[in-house]
Amino acid sequence: MSLPEAPSSAPAPPAGEAPRSFAGGMWSFGRIIDRYATDGYGPEIPTLRTIELAAASGELSGLDLNYPFDEGVSVAEVKETLAAHGLVATNITPVIYDRRFRSGSFTGAREETRNAAVALAHESVEVAHELGARYVKFWPGQDGYDYPFQVDYPTLRRHAVESIRDIARAHPDTTFAIEYKLKEPRNRLFWSTAAASLLAIEQMGVDNVGLVVDFGHSLFAKENPAEALSLAHSMGRLVDVEIDDNYREWDDDLTAGALHLVETLEFLHVVRSIGWRHPVKLDLFPYREDPADAVRESVATLRALEERAARLPLDELRAAQERHDAMAAQRLVRTALFG
Amino acid sequence: MSLPEAPSSAPAPPAGEAPRSFAGGMWSFGRIIDRYATDGYGPEIPTLRTIELAAASGELSGLDLNYPFDEGVSVAEVKETLAAHGLVATNITPVIYDRRFRSGSFTGAREETRNAAVALAHESVEVAHELGARYVKFWPGQDGYDYPFQVDYPTLRRHAVESIRDIARAHPDTTFAIEYKLKEPRNRLFWSTAAASLLAIEQMGVDNVGLVVDFGHSLFAKENPAEALSLAHSMGRLVDVEIDDNYREWDDDLTAGALHLVETLEFLHVVRSIGWRHPVKLDLFPYREDPADAVRESVATLRALEERAARLPLDELRAAQERHDAMAAQRLVRTALFG
Amino acid sequence: MSLPEAPSSAPAPPAGEAPRSFAGGMWSFGRIIDRYATDGYGPEIPTLRTIELAAASGELSGLDLNYPFDEGVSVAEVKETLAAHGLVATNITPVIYDRRFRSGSFTGAREETRNAAVALAHESVEVAHELGARYVKFWPGQDGYDYPFQVDYPTLRRHAVESIRDIARAHPDTTFAIEYKLKEPRNRLFWSTAAASLLAIEQMGVDNVGLVVDFGHSLFAKENPAEALSLAHSMGRLVDVEIDDNYREWDDDLTAGALHLVETLEFLHVVRSIGWRHPVKLDLFPYREDPADAVRESVATLRALEERAARLPLDELRAAQERHDAMAAQRLVRTALFG
Amino acid sequence: MSLPEAPSSAPAPPAGEAPRSFAGGMWSFGRIIDRYATDGYGPEIPTLRTIELAAASGELSGLDLNYPFDEGVSVAEVKETLAAHGLVATNITPVIYDRRFRSGSFTGAREETRNAAVALAHESVEVAHELGARYVKFWPGQDGYDYPFQVDYPTLRRHAVESIRDIARAHPDTTFAIEYKLKEPRNRLFWSTAAASLLAIEQMGVDNVGLVVDFGHSLFAKENPAEALSLAHSMGRLVDVEIDDNYREWDDDLTAGALHLVETLEFLHVVRSIGWRHPVKLDLFPYREDPADAVRESVATLRALEERAARLPLDELRAAQERHDAMAAQRLVRTALFG
Repeated sequence: MSLPEAPSSAPAPPAGEAPRSFAGGMWSFGRIIDRYATDGYGPEIPTLRTIELAAASGELSGLDLNYPFDEGVSVAEVKETLAAHGLVATNITPVIYDRRFRSGSFTGAREETRNAAVALAHESVEVAHELGARYVKFWPGQDGYDYPFQVDYPTLRRHAVESIRDIARAHPDTTFAIEYKLKEPRNRLFWSTAAASLLAIEQMGVDNVGLVVDFGHSLFAKENPAEALSLAHSMGRLVDVEIDDNYREWDDDLTAGALHLVETLEFLHVVRSIGWRHPVKLDLFPYREDPADAVRESVATLRALEERAARLPLDELRAAQERHDAMAAQRLVRTALFG
Repeated sequence: MSLPEAPSSAPAPPAGEAPRSFAGGMWSFGRIIDRYATDGYGPEIPTLRTIELAAASGELSGLDLNYPFDEGVSVAEVKETLAAHGLVATNITPVIYDRRFRSGSFTGAREETRNAAVALAHESVEVAHELGARYVKFWPGQDGYDYPFQVDYPTLRRHAVESIRDIARAHPDTTFAIEYKLKEPRNRLFWSTAAASLLAIEQMGVDNVGLVVDFGHSLFAKENPAEALSLAHSMGRLVDVEIDDNYREWDDDLTAGALHLVETLEFLHVVRSIGWRHPVKLDLFPYREDPADAVRESVATLRALEERAARLPLDELRAAQERHDAMAAQRLVRTALFG
Repeated sequence: MSLPEAPSSAPAPPAGEAPRSFAGGMWSFGRIIDRYATDGYGPEIPTLRTIELAAASGELSGLDLNYPFDEGVSVAEVKETLAAHGLVATNITPVIYDRRFRSGSFTGAREETRNAAVALAHESVEVAHELGARYVKFWPGQDGYDYPFQVDYPTLRRHAVESIRDIARAHPDTTFAIEYKLKEPRNRLFWSTAAASLLAIEQMGVDNVGLVVDFGHSLFAKENPAEALSLAHSMGRLVDVEIDDNYREWDDDLTAGALHLVETLEFLHVVRSIGWRHPVKLDLFPYREDPADAVRESVATLRALEERAARLPLDELRAAQERHDAMAAQRLVRTALFG
Repeated sequence: MSLPEAPSSAPAPPAGEAPRSFAGGMWSFGRIIDRYATDGYGPEIPTLRTIELAAASGELSGLDLNYPFDEGVSVAEVKETLAAHGLVATNITPVIYDRRFRSGSFTGAREETRNAAVALAHESVEVAHELGARYVKFWPGQDGYDYPFQVDYPTLRRHAVESIRDIARAHPDTTFAIEYKLKEPRNRLFWSTAAASLLAIEQMGVDNVGLVVDFGHSLFAKENPAEALSLAHSMGRLVDVEIDDNYREWDDDLTAGALHLVETLEFLHVVRSIGWRHPVKLDLFPYREDPADAVRESVATLRALEERAARLPLDELRAAQERHDAMAAQRLVRTALFG
């Protein structure tokens, strides 16, 4: 590892840049359930239908796909449905957090469970290739613990790091990304923060594993999302970017910009500064809302904010930041937002 | 309303007191599900089987029963099963938080929904009487909102207060209790804290509505649970007491005393000081644990703590508290805990 | 107490309304110190100089004054300096939280300390009258505790409630307000949330004690500030309104709108709905910033936001809120903010 | 960097081990001040007197010394006073967080300020050598920012990492440690979590910089302190261990074990497992308490807990952890605590 080499202030994107595109998560369009509404917040929605619904939002170019799909649905059918609706698969996210993996996937106590997680990962690589997805995403939401004294920390760490390292080595041409999150469903997750995850990824000693920085996860991990994004980028480990919002304590998965407009603006400012060209992904759980509505509202807010981010006078902002001048920076932000 | 008249330091329970008994929640023994393990953390468990499992823990004298029961299960069957296993129904908790009430029960936007919640409440009163339950508990977990600007606050308040007031007036001989919680599943719940709930209950102007103080809910609402308990008691509004534990940010529903031994000890100290004679209820969600194990571990911890609470020299403690002497109080607590 | 009678949606302020005015806190212009920079974040600033600096910000019409003033400074001098700079005293805030009251003011363990707090309160009433201030504000920041078992809760409550009740009875023509805060400097404050404070105020049985709702305090008490404001108003207990911002965990006292623009907008929307005509007060601690700059930046942001609040189509918003339609409400908010 | 090589379960300390010793912080015995009690929570206490007071607690073998000392106090005098009272200097902590460094020390905006911080660091190395201290501790509590957009993150990072790297290279035989903390006095600190700090330390490419893991800092950074300790140790970067307690949201610096007995027990269990032989340091801010009392109460609690930790049956615990069996682990913990 070495010090960040990225220029601290990349030039503004060129005038002729393509408009920002957005991706979504298949889960936003399926049936959401929780521990109270155990009959779900709506009816069951089959895999292929979630793709249609995502397309019907009219704002998405790609989709993050949980795998396995519904029983009986083939990869070819998914591919066809995506194509028919003008969507790409941005990535495959193996479901390593359902009942089978309730006590851990890559770090599960039983070797059999760990092997099942690894097998599903290998399978997901195949599916990603078939669908032309850019990467395979691991969200090891059951890898962690709930109680003090429950696990031996070095063992947990070894399983977490070595399993993904081995998968990455087995597929040197595939990109893998870890989506970190502080907690939920476990009370403590191993892949908890940007820095904790980057440290563990560095320990893997492989080049094809990076990070998904989710604005909301970052926020309730008590990070500043823009700083986390900048860090992952500076280490060459940024694989994808997700946005949503929450009350800083839990992964509420509200629409983008619902609460934290200034920090979302700063996040988009860094997204622009690093020259991010892939779609920005939305990670929403619209329990009681129409998902297409939640996507459209999020995209409209992000477009409005990015338009404001483009108005920021970069030279003046750089000068204010060189002085650590919070009031000058706030003034520029306010002017960009409200004229 | 008037100032608390309860003596600030009730005498210690008499020597010949009956041993503390415990109750549980039916939900702890059923299938737990969440938004990730949508196939559940275990198989489905029918209503009558949860009663058997609760009894088999060997530590419970009563059960908090969600109503309606499984389709086809009659109140008489439940009554019989409880009796056959030596359990009583402590209370009935109508399920006003499933899909039908996903956007609110008593405060739902549609009159039809609000009426459905009220109808279920009336029905629950009947069931409570049939089962000899001490009270009907409302946990209005969908009554609130998720986003700024989503609701008109005075309207929300009016619906919340008037609906329960009207139910209470219709059943003047029935005791009702509200279990407050800061959030989840809504991001913001109306019945959020002990004080907010007591204030709204006072506004009802009825005598038969009170509070369930849940240690865990109180903890992550940023209250001190012992103080909340003392407040509810001082106003004559304490109907029931529940215990569990969490990391102070969310309703993790861990076993009693898993994390916050000192505050649990203080809670039990107040439970004793006010002469609480009903069972202490456990509110656990043992996602990955055997529920009977979680109950037994909780009860063993609470018994150990109450035995320590009984060792506290009340005169010395009172003297330390009169001086606000934290170090003297800590010393007494440490000595009670560790000798 | 009775149910809120305030109309749920007051009409919009009339077209010819006076522009919003702002007040500040004397402390924002004095020397700020904390436990690390014990030599202060800047030089000492005498009382009269803070008034000049507040006036020089060019944006304030009034000032919240801590009392006692610097030794040797008379009330007449303060009055004169205020007048010379076109400022009014909005209120007097007795310093019941310095070394003398470090272990409590109205609830201090020693009677002598409690009497000293009461004496200072009486003196503050005189000063308020001399200066023509609208009310006397109590911020009992040392009234609470730090450790479990440190205090007897009913005794704490009795002291907290009775002391202020007695002061209020002694000055029936004076308005008093309590500024609640969850914590700091004590780990647990008695006057913690809006509801907890309103409940205790109702127990006083007096008409001349109300609440200061501080946006920032409300935010990190895990309330929704707009809802807290609405509640205090509906009970006829709203005495003043303060704004600042923070990261939802602590009283950071950042400039208004620095982080939570949407919730600040909603707060201003309620401020408008209830027809608030007094200055809106800023509660800032500009540790490392020029205080006049922080005031100007806050005012500019609040003016921009209130101008957006005025654009909200009230009929459509009311209709969305009647349906609890979060996405429709968000759309109206986004359109008001960004066109 | 490579994977942790530390055995996951070190053998229990041998029977003949020396009893645990404790160190303190000079600041616990001096005058504490905050932004409200600007006249301090007690009178001023000169440097040499804090040493006497620390010794008089009767429980400390060493002291963490802030440098510079009071004006006019020489290093020789400090050395003499320490010796006269049987104390050692555990480490020197340069005061890089007072008014001079209010906007940053190593990361300050002005080169002059950064140079001043570096100069003070060099001076502290000399003082540490003169006093025979084991290491120099950096607590860069002003290195960070308060507002979004205030700083350029890569620049902040470069200054933070390079400055300490250069100091470490200039003194290859001196050990340096960074004490991380999420916030306070800045709203966001650069050295925020264990993992963030270890990542940055690895980027330095030096061997003589490590970490101080403070139980309380770790707790409110939403880490599990025992896991953070294990991580720092596994990377060979653990320089010192501090204990105190808080409500998980702020650095309250309460006495050890005041609130979180189970997590303190687990922390001590790891302290033992890694064979820690240096004194365990207390980091207390006894605002309203006698500091010697706070030290004695903390030490008594830690001794009681360590005695319980020694009772944990390591084989059974290891077996439970291999199964991730939380209930079995809890049972062992409860039995160790309460018999």
